[in-house]
Amino acid sequence: MRVLVLGGDGFCGWPTALHFSARGHEVVIVDNLVRRATDGELGVQSLTPIRSLDERLDAWRELTGREIEFRNLNVARDYEALEELLRTERPDAVVHFAEQRAAPYSMKSRHHKRYTVDNNVNATNNLLCAMVEAAPDAHLLHLGTMGVYGYGKARGLRVPEGYVEATLRSGGAEADIEMLYPPDPGSIYHMTKCLDQQLFQFYAKNDGLKITDLHQGIVWGTSTPETDMDERLINRFDYDGDYGTVLNRFLMQAAIGHPLTVHGTGGQTRAFIHIRDTVRCIELAALSPPKRGDRVRIMNQMTECHRVRDLAALVSTRTGVPVEHLDNPRKEAPENDLDVENAGLIGLGLNPTFLSEGLMHEVIAVAQRYADRCDRNRIVCTSRWVQDVAGAAAQQAAE
Amino acid sequence: MRVLVLGGDGFCGWPTALHFSARGHEVVIVDNLVRRATDGELGVQSLTPIRSLDERLDAWRELTGREIEFRNLNVARDYEALEELLRTERPDAVVHFAEQRAAPYSMKSRHHKRYTVDNNVNATNNLLCAMVEAAPDAHLLHLGTMGVYGYGKARGLRVPEGYVEATLRSGGAEADIEMLYPPDPGSIYHMTKCLDQQLFQFYAKNDGLKITDLHQGIVWGTSTPETDMDERLINRFDYDGDYGTVLNRFLMQAAIGHPLTVHGTGGQTRAFIHIRDTVRCIELAALSPPKRGDRVRIMNQMTECHRVRDLAALVSTRTGVPVEHLDNPRKEAPENDLDVENAGLIGLGLNPTFLSEGLMHEVIAVAQRYADRCDRNRIVCTSRWVQDVAGAAAQQAAE
Repeated sequence: MRVLVLGGDGFCGWPTALHFSARGHEVVIVDNLVRRATDGELGVQSLTPIRSLDERLDAWRELTGREIEFRNLNVARDYEALEELLRTERPDAVVHFAEQRAAPYSMKSRHHKRYTVDNNVNATNNLLCAMVEAAPDAHLLHLGTMGVYGYGKARGLRVPEGYVEATLRSGGAEADIEMLYPPDPGSIYHMTKCLDQQLFQFYAKNDGLKITDLHQGIVWGTSTPETDMDERLINRFDYDGDYGTVLNRFLMQAAIGHPLTVHGTGGQTRAFIHIRDTVRCIELAALSPPKRGDRVRIMNQMTECHRVRDLAALVSTRTGVPVEHLDNPRKEAPENDLDVENAGLIGLGLNPTFLSEGLMHEVIAVAQRYADRCDRNRIVCTSRWVQDVAGAAAQQAAE
Repeated sequence: MRVLVLGGDGFCGWPTALHFSARGHEVVIVDNLVRRATDGELGVQSLTPIRSLDERLDAWRELTGREIEFRNLNVARDYEALEELLRTERPDAVVHFAEQRAAPYSMKSRHHKRYTVDNNVNATNNLLCAMVEAAPDAHLLHLGTMGVYGYGKARGLRVPEGYVEATLRSGGAEADIEMLYPPDPGSIYHMTKCLDQQLFQFYAKNDGLKITDLHQGIVWGTSTPETDMDERLINRFDYDGDYGTVLNRFLMQAAIGHPLTVHGTGGQTRAFIHIRDTVRCIELAALSPPKRGDRVRIMNQMTECHRVRDLAALVSTRTGVPVEHLDNPRKEAPENDLDVENAGLIGLGLNPTFLSEGLMHEVIAVAQRYADRCDRNRIVCTSRWVQDVAGAAAQQAAE
């Protein structure tokens, strides 16, 4: 298979590119390296010492004899180059990770809100447009998020894989339809993935594009068998308040003896997946593409659900590091349940890596090993969903 | 009331600005005049001889003594200027027409698809972002479209005003919710209005912005009492295949004796509204804003539904001009029924102008009067929803 990995230098993209290459697929990474520039903007760096993309690719060639090509290209801006690339490379699959992917980053300021919307929507629309023109038979695989469903809109309902059966009632009549699960995003970032969903629905209907949207849970872990081969291939590990995902933040905090920072009550239940399952899921989905004219295929890319305070307690118990509750910067329900359907990827052959097995490996092999690279000043999230949380709450109560 | 009209030089924006000004509201028009540039791009011009915005505003001042301010600003690009404008003008209401609004134009090419998504999404997001920063208590009124609902997804159901009661079923459980009517856009343009809806939902929930989204039917007619005051105030009348709306195209075709061009069977049923009701609806909605923290208020801005071939027959009967059926360039159901709730604006006091009353006035006063300005080569729509309609249909049948 010939695979383009857009955003192939990032946290999910890099191990995905290696996973495909290791299995004999031809891989081209497309990236504008913006995630590395964002480290500079935020004054943070990956806990793990990631190498330049050139060094990564040289090491991969040296170790495996396999060549991964790289094109430095901004998917949201360089439309003509993107279309030309699709025309010349003739990919079977295009994996689309080329989006700003952090909720706190998307809420930092008006600049970050606008960048996230502009970048993510234009990246996705450019890709869809270019595929219609130059690669109408390629299979688009997009990384969505469980966050498109929201947490609590339809209490008691198992979150389906994208589509839900519904009876609509209006004007005394009823109609039974199948429709996208009603979106309820909790941040600008999550909202852009809801906008992506609408774009996919349109292009699948109008142009017959083959599209798979994978609604991923929160990723934990950092390494895959390929990134473990050599330190030059090591993957990013973000622990900062913007890009660090909740469990990886706990692991790093445990490694340096910093209290485990739980936002609010920690009653938020979320879906999780290990990074090594992420890369397997992408390949499994790529190996079984939808047909032209099929509806958008949506699968939930997650393996287990946990309450945030239970995760903190688990890590605390195993490491002896205490838990600390901070104000929740997000505007979200303090507590929610979550039950998620994930039969699609399991049915394609995913054999999950559960937290109970892999957790201490990550603490020891990654977080402790690189603990001296941690900047303690960057641990706490400084983004706020509303500018004056206390004021907004008071106002809401008064109205 | 202090009102900003974004897109205030356009077909809906100009008569809306005059309507507000005539009623004593302070009006600022914000526009980048791109619609005039698009006439150049397409090699067309308004059937009516519209004047420069400066001449329009001078005439309005001369005739009424009222001042309408103008700021030349690209809402999708000039973010800082937009935010500063909101901060200094402190509007009570912001009317947002600053979007590319033609479905055929949005489907002309990859360039037009990308421009429409980029312009419309960034314009709306910039405005929302800037309002959070600089005008959180202003009321945003947005012109949506009936096309967000689609035509035929839930057959037999009355199209509600934005929200619908639904029972969702998944994993053996049921949940009753109220949700946005599931969108089903028929073009890139209509899709952007669905994306706008998602943006509004997020900013209303997260930031408590006061938002009214008016899902408008197809506008017909060209003049309002204010634009009728003087020829220098005349409104646009588009008859070309891209920007001309269906009934105005029939009126112009009748005026010059060109066959009335019906796409497909003409079995498409659509919602309509006269331009003079458009401007009244906007003011009625502005005079009764939602409260901070309310959900997005959605109303259907239309007054009657008609089947396209019935409209053609009506115009043909009254004028003697024959009907001609052309291939339908759109990808849509050949026939549909439509029943639309519009109690919201009627309840606020709208007294509709029906087709049966105003139709011949428009033919005589506008279409016939300026018939010699018509370029017959621009009448037929050249956009195609899919590049090779015959090939795509054959492929679909084969799969």
